[in-house]
Amino acid sequence: MAVVLQKYGGSSVATPGRIQAVAGRVILQRQQGHDVVVVVSAPGDTTDELLAMAGRVSRSPSGRELDVLLATGEQTAIALLAMAIQDRGWDAVSFTGAQGGIITDDAHRRARILRVEPHRIRRELDAGRIAVVAGFQGINGREDITTLGRGGSDLTAVALAVALGADSCEIYTDVDGIFTADPRLVPEARKLDTVSYAEMMELASLGAQVMQLRAVEYAMAHRLPIHVRSSFHQGNGTWIREEASMEKQRVVTGVAVDARTVKFTVRGVPDRPGVAHALFSRLAERQVNVDLIIQSAARGELADMSFTVAEDDAEAARAACREAAEALGAEGVDFDGDVAKVSIVGAGMVSTPGVAARMFGLLAGQGINIELIGCSEIKISCVVRRDRAADAARALHDGFGLAGLGDPLQGRG
Amino acid sequence: MAVVLQKYGGSSVATPGRIQAVAGRVILQRQQGHDVVVVVSAPGDTTDELLAMAGRVSRSPSGRELDVLLATGEQTAIALLAMAIQDRGWDAVSFTGAQGGIITDDAHRRARILRVEPHRIRRELDAGRIAVVAGFQGINGREDITTLGRGGSDLTAVALAVALGADSCEIYTDVDGIFTADPRLVPEARKLDTVSYAEMMELASLGAQVMQLRAVEYAMAHRLPIHVRSSFHQGNGTWIREEASMEKQRVVTGVAVDARTVKFTVRGVPDRPGVAHALFSRLAERQVNVDLIIQSAARGELADMSFTVAEDDAEAARAACREAAEALGAEGVDFDGDVAKVSIVGAGMVSTPGVAARMFGLLAGQGINIELIGCSEIKISCVVRRDRAADAARALHDGFGLAGLGDPLQGRG
Repeated sequence: MAVVLQKYGGSSVATPGRIQAVAGRVILQRQQGHDVVVVVSAPGDTTDELLAMAGRVSRSPSGRELDVLLATGEQTAIALLAMAIQDRGWDAVSFTGAQGGIITDDAHRRARILRVEPHRIRRELDAGRIAVVAGFQGINGREDITTLGRGGSDLTAVALAVALGADSCEIYTDVDGIFTADPRLVPEARKLDTVSYAEMMELASLGAQVMQLRAVEYAMAHRLPIHVRSSFHQGNGTWIREEASMEKQRVVTGVAVDARTVKFTVRGVPDRPGVAHALFSRLAERQVNVDLIIQSAARGELADMSFTVAEDDAEAARAACREAAEALGAEGVDFDGDVAKVSIVGAGMVSTPGVAARMFGLLAGQGINIELIGCSEIKISCVVRRDRAADAARALHDGFGLAGLGDPLQGRG
Repeated sequence: MAVVLQKYGGSSVATPGRIQAVAGRVILQRQQGHDVVVVVSAPGDTTDELLAMAGRVSRSPSGRELDVLLATGEQTAIALLAMAIQDRGWDAVSFTGAQGGIITDDAHRRARILRVEPHRIRRELDAGRIAVVAGFQGINGREDITTLGRGGSDLTAVALAVALGADSCEIYTDVDGIFTADPRLVPEARKLDTVSYAEMMELASLGAQVMQLRAVEYAMAHRLPIHVRSSFHQGNGTWIREEASMEKQRVVTGVAVDARTVKFTVRGVPDRPGVAHALFSRLAERQVNVDLIIQSAARGELADMSFTVAEDDAEAARAACREAAEALGAEGVDFDGDVAKVSIVGAGMVSTPGVAARMFGLLAGQGINIELIGCSEIKISCVVRRDRAADAARALHDGFGLAGLGDPLQGRG
């Protein structure tokens, strides 16, 4: 029998009623004769509540013990969902990450999956049972509980789907799929039928919180198609799959806005070799991922260096900048939290000249100033004032024809 | 180094402040150079809350999934306590039942410990760390999570103490120790310095909720002394140990009252062989533990049969009685919830004649009617009206000299 893998997020199991609704959906698949494996996250705000509890007994809880604590969230969810399925007369068995054979490295709070050993799940499926597996958690070589980082349940689902030879993996969420832009910012945004892995990775890393980046990477490496869809209705969502399977190459697939970004500027650094290294090695030491970088034209002997980081890394980045500024004898450090990163993503960009110029033109047409620019083969990002980010997104969405019907994404670059 | 084993109940870890207080006590022992193992229960009302959650998704949750759910309670407690200890600068590691090597049989919700494999705990102790172990839970041969039944954390603590070769096991509770009677019923009740395992088992099974019966059994089998003491101060509590280690044999050690008991009477059953079997085999089928039994004198061809069961078994007992009454052509079934069982316990009874007569005389002196009587070598129980139970307890406590100073328990029988 074909294995069907479904993943439900925390909001889908936040109340007894929703757990029962999920049970109903799971059984529907089982009734169609499939082997069904369900991966669930911790219910609702459980993870945040557990982190708050930890904060009340410890100023700086260890990763190992935090993982023991956090893992109780999904363990609660699997037990309740298995009970709800059983209550409807179907046989179900729950699995913690350890019982499900999710073997990880030792990096608590952000462990990587080393391998999946789903013997026991396979055995229960063969016995006709529905398998309910805790997302987000695994076990390391010392049999310690580990967790996979924010959004880690997606990775659990994808890794299990690959290990069990499923044809695809269904990710159920509270939105209808992947959109050409955030509908709260761009009312004309349209749901996409398909995006490529590469596009989805750019969208995921750019603040579209629908799927975890590492889960998309893992699916791409194993060519596993993912179906992102709504847990509230049966309609099709968005398929994430290989580019080759798409008939037409789109130039621009979507527009992403990331407001959780901050900009730093180290002012008045000497314009000589080794200066960039002095700054960025200090950032690297503190595990800060630097995003866009610009070094302004030198004023005499002095230059300014600007870069952006994710909001979560701001504290560490500030410390690194101060230290570097002192070592370099710089004039000072500026911190700017009023910026946002607006990006366009599309697999067709690489073969279509002029996309960047068109993007800059569209922003200029709205009087929006571009402060930093970055690009990869399939995306272009601009840092703008945060209060102009929505205007920028609408201008790009409209300018690249993303709102149109039919297939207006084709060949407009 | 000597291993010290401490067990803290759910009320001791119910709030962040209490968790920090426990951390302080644990560290105090570690500072004295001992290897410290701490067993904790689920915080406060967690277990009841989890059972209520299960009830909202399932009418009759399976034992396996209930155990998965309930085990999150202690898992939360061990993580928080380990963090609190670490926060004070000491190294601590938490262990779930599975990680701690608590291997049980397959009986979910009331599993028995088959063996303890504390290799990992031993290793962490040898590395100077404090081990924090989840009580109440274990793992069976299929690597499924199991739980040990109400009060099961006591059993975890005792079994670990034996496996690790601890000299004794400390059970921290919210009372000062074991008393000669419940101080709420008998204000003169005195804390006992020592009780024997056998006495404690009678007291435990008679409604003195201080320690789990099976934990006392396990300790007796392995001759492990237990120290029941308050988690609120450093004073001595009550030692539970072998009789031989007590210098003087007491006739009566304590008075126990169990109000969670109900009485059934099957009226007008034929007075012929096989009748008792017809009733009690039906009770046995439903796993009902029958306590005291009486068959009244026959009236012509007919007799009445009365017995008591624990309140939790009342529903099942009622069904068994109705079925038996129908099969036997009995006149009817009476249910009486207004009774209580009052017992005296003492290892010296076996060698002291006249104790029962003295007990009945003390109750008669208060005008208290005895409805059923039962006894073992070291206890005598009487079923009385529930509203006279406190009077009965006080009369017995006073009559057997339990309130006196010095050692008035000696040789009064």
